Amino acid sequence: MILFVDMDEVMADTYNAHIEHYNAAFNETLTLEECMGHEVYQKVPEERQKSIWQHYYKEGFFRSLRPIEDSIHVLQELQKKYDVYIASAAMQFPNSLLEKHQWLDEHFPFIHWRNRILCGDKHILRGDLLIDDRSHNLEKFEGKSLIFTSPHNIHTSQFERVNNWNEIGDTLL
Amino acid sequence: MILFVDMDEVMADTYNAHIEHYNAAFNETLTLEECMGHEVYQKVPEERQKSIWQHYYKEGFFRSLRPIEDSIHVLQELQKKYDVYIASAAMQFPNSLLEKHQWLDEHFPFIHWRNRILCGDKHILRGDLLIDDRSHNLEKFEGKSLIFTSPHNIHTSQFERVNNWNEIGDTLL
Repeated sequence: MILFVDMDEVMADTYNAHIEHYNAAFNETLTLEECMGHEVYQKVPEERQKSIWQHYYKEGFFRSLRPIEDSIHVLQELQKKYDVYIASAAMQFPNSLLEKHQWLDEHFPFIHWRNRILCGDKHILRGDLLIDDRSHNLEKFEGKSLIFTSPHNIHTSQFERVNNWNEIGDTLL
Repeated sequence: MILFVDMDEVMADTYNAHIEHYNAAFNETLTLEECMGHEVYQKVPEERQKSIWQHYYKEGFFRSLRPIEDSIHVLQELQKKYDVYIASAAMQFPNSLLEKHQWLDEHFPFIHWRNRILCGDKHILRGDLLIDDRSHNLEKFEGKSLIFTSPHNIHTSQFERVNNWNEIGDTLL
């Protein structure tokens, strides 16, 4: 059984990194709670929204993300039961390609290079299960979809939801 | 209809680059004709075979490859008729990730980032047609497979063969 796992906001904490980089750049105190139900850029003054987008092009942004809680040991267990592939829509940010690979080497060294996919569209993936935080990826996937809770998707009700990695473990192990 | 196209030895002339880098490094005169039916590393003395493998890790190796003859204009035509995706097994060589992206930007700027896939295994691809020079990729693909002639695969008879990009055009356009 082939299982695809998204990186940003599923394995890597991109969302909180945006808040931290924003607060540091503008000496602000934006909190996760204030952002719930939205994208981070939607919760900052319009003239600063572009700055949030620029994080993606910043050298080291992807490389320094924190792994999402419990993702490492649950993925290690999942690997014993499933063919686990990491599928990240990385092509939009070319600087992220090597950083994402190195980030996996550091935090998830047990995921072989054969099982890593950096792509654009995800509807070209053939497998049984996709865990992702983005509806546009889950919608087009032919297998079963699980939406991983991220602050931006808490109001989405279209997919079976997992709130954290322990829930993924409970569901799949 | 979704069409996947491999990069190395289908779009990019990796094979001749190996010969050129080898000849330059050892002041040799190895020719394409001598290599036919083999991998380049198989046609050099054993103590130099490792050097061929090292080309893959050399900065600039992938970035400076020549596009295979007629690949650009035929792919441009194919794009009008098919959903064309580039699928390259790049994960083994992390330095190639950005270089392959930049190479596509230079030679195939009409291929959108959404349509670029850098992966390990290719059996996770869902689509109708794969053009590749490697049997191990073609074997596991669920759709139709076309083997693209490369010096190393001339004795393979397992798949429908296309010898050059004009033949791809004749077959698919």
